[in-house]
Amino acid sequence: MQTVVAILSGGLDSTVMLADLIAADHCEVVEAISFDYGQRHATMELASAVRVALALNVTHKIIQLPLRDALSSALTGHGDIPEGHYEHESMKATVVPNRNMILLAVAAGRAMSLKANAVAYGAHAGDHAVYADCRPSFVNLVRQAVSQASYEPIDVMAPYLRLRKEDIVARARDLGVLDLVAKTYSCYTGRDAHCGKCGTCTERREAFALAGVDDPTVYA
Amino acid sequence: MQTVVAILSGGLDSTVMLADLIAADHCEVVEAISFDYGQRHATMELASAVRVALALNVTHKIIQLPLRDALSSALTGHGDIPEGHYEHESMKATVVPNRNMILLAVAAGRAMSLKANAVAYGAHAGDHAVYADCRPSFVNLVRQAVSQASYEPIDVMAPYLRLRKEDIVARARDLGVLDLVAKTYSCYTGRDAHCGKCGTCTERREAFALAGVDDPTVYA
Repeated sequence: MQTVVAILSGGLDSTVMLADLIAADHCEVVEAISFDYGQRHATMELASAVRVALALNVTHKIIQLPLRDALSSALTGHGDIPEGHYEHESMKATVVPNRNMILLAVAAGRAMSLKANAVAYGAHAGDHAVYADCRPSFVNLVRQAVSQASYEPIDVMAPYLRLRKEDIVARARDLGVLDLVAKTYSCYTGRDAHCGKCGTCTERREAFALAGVDDPTVYA
Repeated sequence: MQTVVAILSGGLDSTVMLADLIAADHCEVVEAISFDYGQRHATMELASAVRVALALNVTHKIIQLPLRDALSSALTGHGDIPEGHYEHESMKATVVPNRNMILLAVAAGRAMSLKANAVAYGAHAGDHAVYADCRPSFVNLVRQAVSQASYEPIDVMAPYLRLRKEDIVARARDLGVLDLVAKTYSCYTGRDAHCGKCGTCTERREAFALAGVDDPTVYA
């Protein structure tokens, strides 16, 4: 049995992953954790995470990491949010330096504190091009480092690592959680409604289209 | 030229390391960073770090990581501080789960933000038995993970990884920074004077004795 601390951003991927882990026979999700690390869209994203955790009836914890000042990136308030595809060079401006290693390291510490034996995060294949810290080689190294750092083994799970975002949308449909996914928030602008234009909005729209699932998201 | 973000706890090891890096021809220390992560001895330790950074004339930044609630350990206020040697099983209670990976991950993010190309921390051979996250194998994995996570290579330096604490005291003598070392603080109790009995105090006393250097520390 894997006892899991699941990282829940409040976006589509981590929401479907959480529902998937809860539905899995071999897993017990002991806590979903979200991070307030000074991301520009914190309020909307964390409110979405709270809604998702309540809907899925899982213990939820928000961990404050006031790194806005220390880590510079468009996502933490330095510079403008670029529009368009993730593939574009300009999207690198949205990278919070070393974000996933920081979040995974804290999540692993939290798992050790709770005597859970795994952490899970929703990295997927669509992230690989821009986000080096979503690639399988990175996940493997973090998994090994975490296992070295703890007395009891802690696994680093990334169950969607080989899936594209449209596969995750299809998985949401199969799990029957599209209503929940409709309520998730992942727009980088942090405005009330998804802008429909930023990297995550563009990716989100395309994923529904490619999966052949009606997109329930309300775009501005 | 290595441009380095150095982790400075305010204790003996990181203080000597910082002086050593500043004295080295191949290094430029762009910033020393200290962490307030809810450690029981935060006030004394961070005050020591501030004194050291001022004395060495290096830019210093304190990064808040309010993880006291999320990560359980004697060092963050859960349970009592055990007395005696690090080797004792009870000293495991002082381990902050995954602390070094968290601090190194944030330090690497900070280095990326500053366009520095290395982070340095003061892990040494005396820590290896109790603290898994001070061992060479751990450092190597974190180094690889960090290099995967960044567009520009960031090295993880641990220049004292093969030294014992008495070697670091001897190094302080050779660098002429014993006066500075006398002002460092590393007692786990957080009281004004070093208790002389906790794990770090015991280790500190022995290191001076083994190095054949008069211990300038005032013990309670």
